[in-house]
Amino acid sequence: MEFLPPYLLFLGNAKDPLSVKTSRGVAEWRPEKCIGQISMPGCEVTLKLPEVDFKTAASKGAKTFILGLANRGGVIDPLWISYMVQAMEHGMDIASGLHKKIADIPEINQLADLLGRQIFDVRHPVIDLSVGTGKKRPGKRILTVGTDCSVGKMYTTLALEKNMKSRGLNVDFRATGQTGILIDGKGIPVDAVISDFLSGAVEALALDNSEDHWDVIEGQGSLFHPSFAGVSLGLLHGAQADVLILCHEAGRSHMRGLPHQQLPDMQRCINNNLEAARLTNRHVILGGISINTSALSKQNSDIYCQNMAEEYGVPCVDPLRQGMNSIVDYILSKKG
Amino acid sequence: MEFLPPYLLFLGNAKDPLSVKTSRGVAEWRPEKCIGQISMPGCEVTLKLPEVDFKTAASKGAKTFILGLANRGGVIDPLWISYMVQAMEHGMDIASGLHKKIADIPEINQLADLLGRQIFDVRHPVIDLSVGTGKKRPGKRILTVGTDCSVGKMYTTLALEKNMKSRGLNVDFRATGQTGILIDGKGIPVDAVISDFLSGAVEALALDNSEDHWDVIEGQGSLFHPSFAGVSLGLLHGAQADVLILCHEAGRSHMRGLPHQQLPDMQRCINNNLEAARLTNRHVILGGISINTSALSKQNSDIYCQNMAEEYGVPCVDPLRQGMNSIVDYILSKKG
Repeated sequence: MEFLPPYLLFLGNAKDPLSVKTSRGVAEWRPEKCIGQISMPGCEVTLKLPEVDFKTAASKGAKTFILGLANRGGVIDPLWISYMVQAMEHGMDIASGLHKKIADIPEINQLADLLGRQIFDVRHPVIDLSVGTGKKRPGKRILTVGTDCSVGKMYTTLALEKNMKSRGLNVDFRATGQTGILIDGKGIPVDAVISDFLSGAVEALALDNSEDHWDVIEGQGSLFHPSFAGVSLGLLHGAQADVLILCHEAGRSHMRGLPHQQLPDMQRCINNNLEAARLTNRHVILGGISINTSALSKQNSDIYCQNMAEEYGVPCVDPLRQGMNSIVDYILSKKG
Repeated sequence: MEFLPPYLLFLGNAKDPLSVKTSRGVAEWRPEKCIGQISMPGCEVTLKLPEVDFKTAASKGAKTFILGLANRGGVIDPLWISYMVQAMEHGMDIASGLHKKIADIPEINQLADLLGRQIFDVRHPVIDLSVGTGKKRPGKRILTVGTDCSVGKMYTTLALEKNMKSRGLNVDFRATGQTGILIDGKGIPVDAVISDFLSGAVEALALDNSEDHWDVIEGQGSLFHPSFAGVSLGLLHGAQADVLILCHEAGRSHMRGLPHQQLPDMQRCINNNLEAARLTNRHVILGGISINTSALSKQNSDIYCQNMAEEYGVPCVDPLRQGMNSIVDYILSKKG
């Protein structure tokens, strides 16, 4: 599953900035691949990209029309269909992160066939998967893990990739969720894979590579989330990580979506992730801690991260505030 | 997914006793539900059930024709189709444990529609699943876990159910794999479920129940198997087990299918399973150890189990040799 840049980002009739979070991720992390945005009348949000029409986008070479929208239930607004039709008529493929497959809309499907366009429903895996083997693969791998869901694993992974790229390292981001896949144009949505193939999917995502190559793999869920821990463990085993980065949100009161479920103790979360990861890579280390400190003042964020770094013996940062340098320095000093 | 007894078991043209292992499980654990077997010319195995023709089976009330066969790749021998056709013509539904869906054979599908018969491809889950919540459910639950795959988890679970039923306890076997489902006529093949719904599937399999009710849930894989540990962890969290029974095969040299992967240390396997299970049931205990000692003499099996019981402080048996009494006694003394 790999779709081509440059992209035209669709905002639909969004009123709420959160509903275009995925498109915003694409614009933030891959600005060089974004030609512009296209909105419907009544749209109240912007990605601060040029607002273009289909003809202009096509003349600038747009290859993929991206629906990076979220709405209740992941359904498709019928008003969006004519925009998808126009995108295909102007030569573009379509990539969607919605739950409902746009390939199941007969009008879209038939036109794509007729015009030879491709439809990428990125929540739905398309590759033939195999069962994982746990066999050690050449190349180096970093995986983000979390105390919970939605604590900044994707953000941290992309910030790692960016920092490492800026140092001239041979590095690739490996997306495991729909937002990451829409940002990178490729990946495997591991939570949508048949359970039997979980670790095999991650083995296929981060294949054998040269010894100096780094895969930075986006983690999912948490070993301590009762709904999704199986996904997290399959990911840990398939990734064979050399380095784990633990992600956390400062001040979170309970596991996401489960008011009855406490956050895990930090040290226990580190220990259990390392122990599970050792099953397929006994040399795995903790390379750093990444904290979403948006609930704290800048000063308190600095203090919080400093305390964590002292307590756990690895660099600790909020990627948005302190940047990734100290973590990447540490990783390279241990595994570079 | 629930199909009706009594059953007619199909042996096809099998030459190898292993290839009818699933049918043998049905005949062994649910003999009261089996009307007979039906073989093709050249078949060299038997389940020691009466060999009947379709007319006789129908006159005795057979409701489901079971394909409990295994062959390379799980494919469907074209010669089997006329037998399925005859079964449907004689009023039976069809249940199959093959990888390939028999519902995808046009001839079978169309005839089923025409005659109003049901097709159960038990490896393919059919229910709408939800994400797990981890919320504590009333009722008591026992889950088998393993040091590895294929160490006797299903056998142990069925032996527990049988022993507990014989004591008049309110107990149900909960199948999580295709053989267990074919034996019990219902269940959810958890390894075929989309990863996101792993623990939710087990929550749906072993629902809220009365306080005196026991679910004995068939485990899958092992927390220490790099290919399948995600499935095992989702199962642990979804089951919310009050009691774990650890299953093991004496003398196994490496993880099944993975010559490079060692078996886990027994104490570590117990500790990690209990710790993971505590996330959704903090009162979980180890209720016993079940060993496949087929590689040992009877005397050595006794000694082996006695040593294990002393070392780990719980009863240890080979269900086939020492029976399940000591384990069930222990469970009832702790949780009854």
